[in-house]
Amino acid sequence: MAPRAIVRHHACMIESTMQDFPLTINHLFQHGRRVHGDAEVITFHGPDQPLQRATFAEVGDRADQLAAALAKLGVQPGDRVGTFMWNNQRHMEAYLAVPSMGAVLHTLNIRLFPEQLSYVVNHAEDKVIIIDASLAPLLANVFDQLTTVEHVIVCQGPEHIDVEGLGDTVDYETLLAVEEPGFTYPEIDERSAMAMCYTSGTTGNPKGVAYSHRSSYLHAMAAMSAQTLQFNQHERTLVIVPMFHANAWGMPYAAWGVGADLIMPQQHLQGVSLAGLIEQTKPTISGAVPTVLNDLLQNAPEADLSSLRYVVCGGSAVPRALIEGYRSNFGVDVLQAWGMTETSPLAAVGWPQRGVAYEDDIDVRVKTGRVIPGVEIRICDDDGNVLPWDGEAQGEIEIRGPWITASYYNDPAPEKFHDGWLRTGDVASMEPNGFIQISDRAKDVIKSGGEWISSVDLENTLMGHPSVVEAAVVGVPDDRWDERPMACVVAAEGTSPTPEELSEYLADRVAKWWVPERWTFIDEVPKTSVGKFSKKDLRAAYANEELDVIELG
Amino acid sequence: MAPRAIVRHHACMIESTMQDFPLTINHLFQHGRRVHGDAEVITFHGPDQPLQRATFAEVGDRADQLAAALAKLGVQPGDRVGTFMWNNQRHMEAYLAVPSMGAVLHTLNIRLFPEQLSYVVNHAEDKVIIIDASLAPLLANVFDQLTTVEHVIVCQGPEHIDVEGLGDTVDYETLLAVEEPGFTYPEIDERSAMAMCYTSGTTGNPKGVAYSHRSSYLHAMAAMSAQTLQFNQHERTLVIVPMFHANAWGMPYAAWGVGADLIMPQQHLQGVSLAGLIEQTKPTISGAVPTVLNDLLQNAPEADLSSLRYVVCGGSAVPRALIEGYRSNFGVDVLQAWGMTETSPLAAVGWPQRGVAYEDDIDVRVKTGRVIPGVEIRICDDDGNVLPWDGEAQGEIEIRGPWITASYYNDPAPEKFHDGWLRTGDVASMEPNGFIQISDRAKDVIKSGGEWISSVDLENTLMGHPSVVEAAVVGVPDDRWDERPMACVVAAEGTSPTPEELSEYLADRVAKWWVPERWTFIDEVPKTSVGKFSKKDLRAAYANEELDVIELG
Repeated sequence: MAPRAIVRHHACMIESTMQDFPLTINHLFQHGRRVHGDAEVITFHGPDQPLQRATFAEVGDRADQLAAALAKLGVQPGDRVGTFMWNNQRHMEAYLAVPSMGAVLHTLNIRLFPEQLSYVVNHAEDKVIIIDASLAPLLANVFDQLTTVEHVIVCQGPEHIDVEGLGDTVDYETLLAVEEPGFTYPEIDERSAMAMCYTSGTTGNPKGVAYSHRSSYLHAMAAMSAQTLQFNQHERTLVIVPMFHANAWGMPYAAWGVGADLIMPQQHLQGVSLAGLIEQTKPTISGAVPTVLNDLLQNAPEADLSSLRYVVCGGSAVPRALIEGYRSNFGVDVLQAWGMTETSPLAAVGWPQRGVAYEDDIDVRVKTGRVIPGVEIRICDDDGNVLPWDGEAQGEIEIRGPWITASYYNDPAPEKFHDGWLRTGDVASMEPNGFIQISDRAKDVIKSGGEWISSVDLENTLMGHPSVVEAAVVGVPDDRWDERPMACVVAAEGTSPTPEELSEYLADRVAKWWVPERWTFIDEVPKTSVGKFSKKDLRAAYANEELDVIELG
Repeated sequence: MAPRAIVRHHACMIESTMQDFPLTINHLFQHGRRVHGDAEVITFHGPDQPLQRATFAEVGDRADQLAAALAKLGVQPGDRVGTFMWNNQRHMEAYLAVPSMGAVLHTLNIRLFPEQLSYVVNHAEDKVIIIDASLAPLLANVFDQLTTVEHVIVCQGPEHIDVEGLGDTVDYETLLAVEEPGFTYPEIDERSAMAMCYTSGTTGNPKGVAYSHRSSYLHAMAAMSAQTLQFNQHERTLVIVPMFHANAWGMPYAAWGVGADLIMPQQHLQGVSLAGLIEQTKPTISGAVPTVLNDLLQNAPEADLSSLRYVVCGGSAVPRALIEGYRSNFGVDVLQAWGMTETSPLAAVGWPQRGVAYEDDIDVRVKTGRVIPGVEIRICDDDGNVLPWDGEAQGEIEIRGPWITASYYNDPAPEKFHDGWLRTGDVASMEPNGFIQISDRAKDVIKSGGEWISSVDLENTLMGHPSVVEAAVVGVPDDRWDERPMACVVAAEGTSPTPEELSEYLADRVAKWWVPERWTFIDEVPKTSVGKFSKKDLRAAYANEELDVIELG
């Protein structure tokens, strides 16, 4: 070895030589329109209407025109542009144009209660709202409470709808007609906000998550992964999950980036409509919450869904009966995935691991999913101690990663975070191989005599009974056990299941001490604005003695 | 609309609420070892030796031990650790440990000429080198010229090899034996260097590319994409491409991150050895340069490669005969991909686009590939003007993106860059759908009477002739046309093709005016240190009248 004349001691890292190239939605936008210009966005206007088709090249040009029109209306980088829309081509145009011009796409949940809707528009300070004409009455309800909105752009469908109560509106197509493709998009810091979505907690005001270009780009790449949703140029994506829910689980951007067709069902989300749309357009991938998939299974059990490679399902626990029903009725696999608005949302995906035979894989598919590359997950007990991944220990899921939120928009909510990890509010065990098994929402956990009972397990088991359409289980006060589960059951049409019969059914399938003593039969389970069971409302109804409760001895 | 008391004008972007979570190799390392702890790294020590198997959990523990050992030797964040190794488990351990501890993995090309080897070790200032004992003589050749190396760690295989000429070496296993798993890895800035790889230009000194954690993480995600290499937990990856070439095309990190098995062939890269290894271990994905694949096709045409879903091939143009041969002999699809050390390397992948029938897809597979999401490509003429994607215009490929280099390590080389884009030195046309068709290296382009002739096309066509094993075509001075192609042909064993016969063969397949007048038959095409045709040497041999040239009338 030669004398070490040049030896240095490096106390710090050295720089790479790589480009400092920002991760932006505009990159995916330009890539898709150019490289996959012949892929299509297809919008369904109902069974009696022709499909509306446009190529990615055409949609890209129209997004340029939209950006130019918004700029003319005064939209600057950083301004919030709300959308109050179904899943359709114009919503996709807004998905592309608004972030690429440096503005922030605020997807408004059309199912928010009026006071929540006005709150989120004002809190986000939306400057412009783009609205589907059919949804105008919902916004008109609260329009006089909106303090920042300067322009409302109305989208008309095949049949013109007169819009009232939204002030001086402008027509979407009229705006675009005077603009040319070829907008000059600005350079953008990847950490700046590109979209906002408010979660609707069951208490307090909704909280806003502001996605960055970086987080949404990375999330789109994660969704393209062969390990997760497998987006690629050969797919046709039926986007059932609303585009106002966490960027429709990232499907629009992932599909656009790889040139997978996008099929948009607008408001036609009933099972029979969807079945017809699937038969007509032959999607290969779709995604929806369990209630929508269940509606299709119940009302169109003979449909031909054979074009589908899989349907990703999440938003709440996916019942085994649904997974089995899709396989036996349709020959279609349901893929459970887990995430939330705060996680962009993809955090876990339930592909069966290697070594699991197809005939045996339902036991895996009913699990919540397996943590995907890019995010880190841990479970913690009430004191914040990290618990082992042993398939036994139950704790709150905490999560971190480049597409996980660190706070809420102008609402830091420190109680939702723990040492830089997001507290998800979901209680779960972790298997050694990274599969999550959520047993409950932290606030819905039932503690009976010091032991936990999973309301989710009881609900899913009950919903496997042929006479049960929906079942919600909540904890109610109990003199002896502090808390006991109460089952709230919606019976299938033409059936009258008894508490005794359902108790026996449960006793064969869960620990005997989990079986509820209290039973109530209701017409429907109350839902939150995002369609989840509102257990808060059920607990309140019980406390107020509004329910007709049968108590078994 | 209410009075706009709160309207503000935002002159700049707003911050997102997302976590500022760094993109690091350590994240992928920890994810793979934990979530996919039962995946395997399998090392081949030769047909008469048992396979060496270790789970990701075990390899992860050993990587911890390696990090601890390196730290004890004085390796600090930012220090360079060289590897002079075949593809094997210990090389994978270094891939994981060195970047995760904040040091920089410098993969030394074992085929560099001695003066290049000493140059790159000194230029990178490697502090430690980990070396396979079988490669010790190559490093010993230049060891007295190395100015910064403080420690050499020797890896012994099943049969001990005495190592000489490397000073006081330490044994890899001896170092690890005294360490425990559970190293505490530091927090790392995603933009810091995690690995270095030197390119060997045909002129001047090698130039170093320093990959960042961010770039390698993003590249691994890109390789997991269903649109590109499709890494997922069900694959078994035979890594033929050396781990000292651009991180083995990113396959080790992508495979590790999703839990795909890694099969490492060490020095056993001859076609017959590889065929046996494939039959034994049943990989589903592999990657290699054309010469290696061709060697396998020629020497083991009856092998059973049916476990392979595809073989990715790049590094130089992939001849049609090779793609056709793999399909007809083995039923295996060859996937052409394009990139270079400077591009991490994945930039284009040649999956046939939608609508191309399997029977017709060879015409697509012979193309260079289609630009992938994440990178941007353009072609420019000699004056730097951007040319259209019309399938006709030919220009130098320029490329940019988050895993493309912006400079060289301590060697900025401004002539290699143009307005922030890397000039690749490859001349190509672009099809409207983003498919690249490389016609030549810029320096190898033949300009005949003002028109371009593609040496690559001529070579690939010639190599389709049954009597031609290798063919290189270079431009040589010509009185009338300024420059004309000269064909340098290696005849297949037992054959004696004539220039007239090969000219006729070419004339049926390329433009008549492309057909070379000058022919020479050589024993082998001279190669660069990375195994590519060294056309500089051929041109020099011609200029020095060292070749026996036949000139057709």
